[in-house]
Amino acid sequence: MNKKMENMKRLFEPKSVAVVGASEKFDKLGFHVMKSLKECGFSGEIIPINPNAKKIFGIKAYPSIRSYPGRIDLAIVAVPERFVSEVFDQCHEKDVGGIVLITAGFREIDDPEGERKQMLLREKAERYSIPVIGPNTFGIVNLSYGLNASFTPEFSLTKKGNVALVSQSGGMSHLISFLSQRQDIGFSKIVGVGNRLNVDFYEMLLFLKDDPETNVIALYIEGIDNPRPMIEAIKDVSKKKPVIAYKTGSSKTSNQASKSHTGSLAGRYELYIGSLKQAGAIVVENVEELLDAAKAFSKSSVPNGNRIAILSGQAGPGIAAADIAEKFGLEIPRFTERTQEKINSLLPPMAIRINPVDMGPAWYDKEATKKIIDVAIRDENIDAAVILIMYASANIGAVDGIKDMLIEWNQKKPVLTCISSPSGIWERQIEELEEKKAIVNYPTPERAAKSCGFLWEYKRRVLG
Amino acid sequence: MNKKMENMKRLFEPKSVAVVGASEKFDKLGFHVMKSLKECGFSGEIIPINPNAKKIFGIKAYPSIRSYPGRIDLAIVAVPERFVSEVFDQCHEKDVGGIVLITAGFREIDDPEGERKQMLLREKAERYSIPVIGPNTFGIVNLSYGLNASFTPEFSLTKKGNVALVSQSGGMSHLISFLSQRQDIGFSKIVGVGNRLNVDFYEMLLFLKDDPETNVIALYIEGIDNPRPMIEAIKDVSKKKPVIAYKTGSSKTSNQASKSHTGSLAGRYELYIGSLKQAGAIVVENVEELLDAAKAFSKSSVPNGNRIAILSGQAGPGIAAADIAEKFGLEIPRFTERTQEKINSLLPPMAIRINPVDMGPAWYDKEATKKIIDVAIRDENIDAAVILIMYASANIGAVDGIKDMLIEWNQKKPVLTCISSPSGIWERQIEELEEKKAIVNYPTPERAAKSCGFLWEYKRRVLG
Repeated sequence: MNKKMENMKRLFEPKSVAVVGASEKFDKLGFHVMKSLKECGFSGEIIPINPNAKKIFGIKAYPSIRSYPGRIDLAIVAVPERFVSEVFDQCHEKDVGGIVLITAGFREIDDPEGERKQMLLREKAERYSIPVIGPNTFGIVNLSYGLNASFTPEFSLTKKGNVALVSQSGGMSHLISFLSQRQDIGFSKIVGVGNRLNVDFYEMLLFLKDDPETNVIALYIEGIDNPRPMIEAIKDVSKKKPVIAYKTGSSKTSNQASKSHTGSLAGRYELYIGSLKQAGAIVVENVEELLDAAKAFSKSSVPNGNRIAILSGQAGPGIAAADIAEKFGLEIPRFTERTQEKINSLLPPMAIRINPVDMGPAWYDKEATKKIIDVAIRDENIDAAVILIMYASANIGAVDGIKDMLIEWNQKKPVLTCISSPSGIWERQIEELEEKKAIVNYPTPERAAKSCGFLWEYKRRVLG
Repeated sequence: MNKKMENMKRLFEPKSVAVVGASEKFDKLGFHVMKSLKECGFSGEIIPINPNAKKIFGIKAYPSIRSYPGRIDLAIVAVPERFVSEVFDQCHEKDVGGIVLITAGFREIDDPEGERKQMLLREKAERYSIPVIGPNTFGIVNLSYGLNASFTPEFSLTKKGNVALVSQSGGMSHLISFLSQRQDIGFSKIVGVGNRLNVDFYEMLLFLKDDPETNVIALYIEGIDNPRPMIEAIKDVSKKKPVIAYKTGSSKTSNQASKSHTGSLAGRYELYIGSLKQAGAIVVENVEELLDAAKAFSKSSVPNGNRIAILSGQAGPGIAAADIAEKFGLEIPRFTERTQEKINSLLPPMAIRINPVDMGPAWYDKEATKKIIDVAIRDENIDAAVILIMYASANIGAVDGIKDMLIEWNQKKPVLTCISSPSGIWERQIEELEEKKAIVNYPTPERAAKSCGFLWEYKRRVLG
């Protein structure tokens, strides 16, 4: 491993962080970075760098990187572009481990001078073996380490988990964090690669491959100039950890906007999608699918095959789920004779007793619902279960009735669910089931079925 | 109008409601129906019918419909199938206005006897000119009238609004209600048509066409035997009120399950979709799209053309929105020269100043953000705006900065947004903006853009 990649660990797990451009003024990004660091529970040293202040946020400030006597692992840089080159030199002098370069004004601007400046800075960073996240980034968040090195303190509200997000868009990263806060999805790291001075998707993939806190990698990609290294890295990494990819830039307008945003054309969308899929990425089409897939891989095992049982408290949601499931290559097979006989003994003839099963008529009978799910999920013809239960007053006991069984089952085969109720009902039970990894719950039957499709796609195309 | 259709008004706006099979036992649906009626704030008379009780829920019970001395507008029937025919006779005798038939065991069962019973019952209902919702339904909810005639009391938590849902699935109706409770979408009526004895989508469409409380009609369709009257009704109604249609049953499994569920094969999916579109329905592909479209039509005007301005606080979400917008036939045109000059004066050159505009660099400058939106939305080249703002600490003032202007603008052209933040930030402002119909907000940029596509589709294909 080269020195730059070795330094990545210091960048993501620093013992000391300097904020170059630290400020107490709200309209400076250095203010927000200081706030993030102070409030995230970071246990290491925070070193404000500002030539015009003695103290910032109550912490002794230094006029420059050079003037600080101790060791600096990470420098977060939020000063105007014209000062950046000199800051890099000082970082080299002080053997700083890594840089988060928030400053904008490089390749993304509509001026060849920006491109040239970025080239020069890149050469410098490579020569110094300093990995640089950015420029033009919100920063990084290492939730498993308690580090918020970004200009948004509220990133620290993101739940801890095993999903790493690497994103070319700050806006999308913020959105994903906010959306995930309202669901049960946790992140290990959130990384805004920005204009990728010398840390691109490629480097991040290699770093995350061996990150013990990360089991799932989600990418938001607009455009990169030379996608081959990224594609090769996905080929390698996806065998070990699922890689989810959301690529925008399919429209002519967005392709052009991407050039201005990240300094790279989005490129031929179809070519990207083809290569991403071939490399083993799970390609999703919007930000909610990215989160849904991440949640499934984060909390569920992967099915051995494509045969699912749809077990529904009401017929309609089961039908909607079956539609999506078939679109994603899942099969809804017959149960074995033994299973079917058992289900027939538990449901009246008026019910839909074959797969997809309508458990509606067993509402009042918690034992029957539990037994149907139990026998269906153990069936040798079945690789995963999609369970759909909508609250309806008469079935208020349904979730309590199946809880222990599902916890005991512990997703030996995946159990994706849409259990839905008004606020205040079943929420505690759903939370408990998710915490104990007994289910992965989704807001709609379609999203539960689709997420099962993502799991199967990974098994089929990557694990084989 | 025939007598049956006249009676629809008594069915949906009854002054007195009889519950045939009312009960105090939790495991009887008659218990849950009584609870719904008691708790929904219904101001009319509730008449429990049960031969074995003097009082139910503290209300004097009668042994039969016949034995009640007063007038009955609506009878909710939740007794076993074998009693239903006699109940219908008594309803006729007492000139009951309409029936909600919760009882199951008719066409949907796997026995020709069920079909025959439904035929006989249907003949009776038609002869009596009594409109019947069901059989095999959860019931109806008339939120604008304060009536919950269903077996789920929690339907009353649904917000009041101008969307009517007509659904062939109880499970889907429950889900839609729960999902809508977490967003700002309100319903006028929720109707579970069940196995459609003599009130089918056709009759519901005609009824809702003239319902002053309903501006948008959403349909969840599995399968019906003779779709032509429904298609004809959509053709007629959609000119006056947008009709959104979600049709399931595209897979072979779901097609078969639908037969068992609602007594009708789902039918050739593509044929359905073609006819629905041709008739002027906005066809959606999942339950979230149904809600997103309903929200847009419920709260926004319809754009005159397909030219949208995408105004984004961060570039990434704007790019994702542009992708979806183009897929849905929307254009992201150049602004007029005057508008562009004004925007150029408000944003530094490094920003993306052409449409889609990246307002990021104006974060600290509330006035600039406001003026950009104001000038873009008034541009004669622009028919609607999609505004995307992700919270990021430094831009905390952004929503306050544009609030008054958007309220004053009052969606003279549609304003669809994804304004997103962690819990507790911006929520009050978003709520105020939605309440005042200044914006229609969505959880993701893609869903905001797609919803704008639905509005445009309605203008293009139906209004012309």
